[in-house]
Amino acid sequence: MNENIYDLAIIGGGPAGLTAAIYGKRYGLTTVVISDSFGGMMSTAHKICNYPGFNEITGMDLSLKMIDQATNLNVDIVFEKTIDIQKENDFIINTDQRTIKAKKIILAIGRARRKLGLPREEEFTGKGVSYCATCDAGFYKDKIVAVIGGSDAAVTAAIMLSEIANKVYIIYRKEQLRAEKAWIDLAINNSKIEILYNTEVTELLGSERLTGIITNNDKNISLDGLFIEIGSVPNTDLLSKLDVLLDKNSFIVVDKSQKTNISGIFAAGDATNKTDLKQVITASSQGAIAAYYCYLEIKG
Amino acid sequence: MNENIYDLAIIGGGPAGLTAAIYGKRYGLTTVVISDSFGGMMSTAHKICNYPGFNEITGMDLSLKMIDQATNLNVDIVFEKTIDIQKENDFIINTDQRTIKAKKIILAIGRARRKLGLPREEEFTGKGVSYCATCDAGFYKDKIVAVIGGSDAAVTAAIMLSEIANKVYIIYRKEQLRAEKAWIDLAINNSKIEILYNTEVTELLGSERLTGIITNNDKNISLDGLFIEIGSVPNTDLLSKLDVLLDKNSFIVVDKSQKTNISGIFAAGDATNKTDLKQVITASSQGAIAAYYCYLEIKG
Repeated sequence: MNENIYDLAIIGGGPAGLTAAIYGKRYGLTTVVISDSFGGMMSTAHKICNYPGFNEITGMDLSLKMIDQATNLNVDIVFEKTIDIQKENDFIINTDQRTIKAKKIILAIGRARRKLGLPREEEFTGKGVSYCATCDAGFYKDKIVAVIGGSDAAVTAAIMLSEIANKVYIIYRKEQLRAEKAWIDLAINNSKIEILYNTEVTELLGSERLTGIITNNDKNISLDGLFIEIGSVPNTDLLSKLDVLLDKNSFIVVDKSQKTNISGIFAAGDATNKTDLKQVITASSQGAIAAYYCYLEIKG
Repeated sequence: MNENIYDLAIIGGGPAGLTAAIYGKRYGLTTVVISDSFGGMMSTAHKICNYPGFNEITGMDLSLKMIDQATNLNVDIVFEKTIDIQKENDFIINTDQRTIKAKKIILAIGRARRKLGLPREEEFTGKGVSYCATCDAGFYKDKIVAVIGGSDAAVTAAIMLSEIANKVYIIYRKEQLRAEKAWIDLAINNSKIEILYNTEVTELLGSERLTGIITNNDKNISLDGLFIEIGSVPNTDLLSKLDVLLDKNSFIVVDKSQKTNISGIFAAGDATNKTDLKQVITASSQGAIAAYYCYLEIKG
């Protein structure tokens, strides 16, 4: 740990944050990564088949490779939750355990899973309701489960669950899934998967834990598990003491150098407004660009 | 090979082109990559240490991994030189051996090495003058060589050459190298490397082949080999029959969706005006984004 002031503090340990760290450190900046989730949302991906260089790798394995790469470069990694960030002469970052100072900040804070907003959703979370198939699939061996959503994340979750559960519904509110065709083909040809289009969940059933759902077309479906994969929203709560500009969907507004409206604060990855395509490769690229312009500001 | 019309033809086989192919194919588009150089400029990198996921990998190995990944997805890869591209109802791509048709194009055409512009430079090319240390270093075992330039490419070329040659000059016109600090430290601490700052080459010497140089400060330096690493310019010659908008430095102007000014033509990677940081990770990211918006245009 560096007791003095870091050149660069990166908030978030997903692909954007870890790539920013690799670049920042190689540019000679003293660099710390602060994150309570190593690998970020990447680490929960069942399979990644479109990150160039790996035919197929689990999100956890790719996360470990990037962490290893940063660690080998002597990046400091602090496994703590950031509570808030203040700007004085330098930036003051308060985690749940300490205070860290830095000259520049890269916000690589990613996204949190979006909730359905149904009554009892919170009560059943961890009792049949899950936001992470990779984390919780193992609990549903030979059971009946459903995945809500039509994205890559939803369809890959269903495919993974089909390897463990007996039956997997995909419940999607539209007429067509919006995942990559390669994933859709796998799901359609999987005898354990049944896709319910034009369907929304309107009620969660159960006493101690979830036992079923009711849908908008009045179906009553018995379930042991419900996986909610309906997108995500940026983790911007910790920015309360900074006037970082957000767009109307709460994504951080950045320019082509990944600079925010606040001098010295950059942002990279899924929390930014930069692209609709939120992938490991795009987040990593933004991390590299943020570190580069950060370096130019410090050394330039 | 697809005798009909491809959904997507990608011109260029570097990281931008190969990533676009991986994404395009996974989106269900019939996809062809046309390139006379697999891996593009990436394949000539001696060592890549900042591509997330690999602590250290040669440019050739990373190129082969990406080609393997595209090939496993049944992307068609055509190892031919593109001569020109015309737009009719579809795009007509003429290579040196055939004609290929496609609905959409991604230009991932990369860059060509910049030349010094000195008399006899062309005459000595392959006879002591080289633009690719990775390709030609092996010819200079125990010899004296120089690298011109101060970028990452120049400094890493010098480091690699120092493992083979007896003595390596780095000749740079400015007071400080502009490579990553990690590379600069390695070069400065390398006893075989001598850095000549504020120095430019004014004359190439030799009869049959290069034997030395004269510099702006009137030094006469004996050399067996001279490696020119002074940047690069986009490979836009093959665009002569298209009105693709270029910026004043000949980079292809793209928007945040990687679209050019011509409907149906996207561009990705080092040939675009999108970022100053030209890296494998940034090129790959642009390739993914181009394929995504191309897919939306075709299927949307």
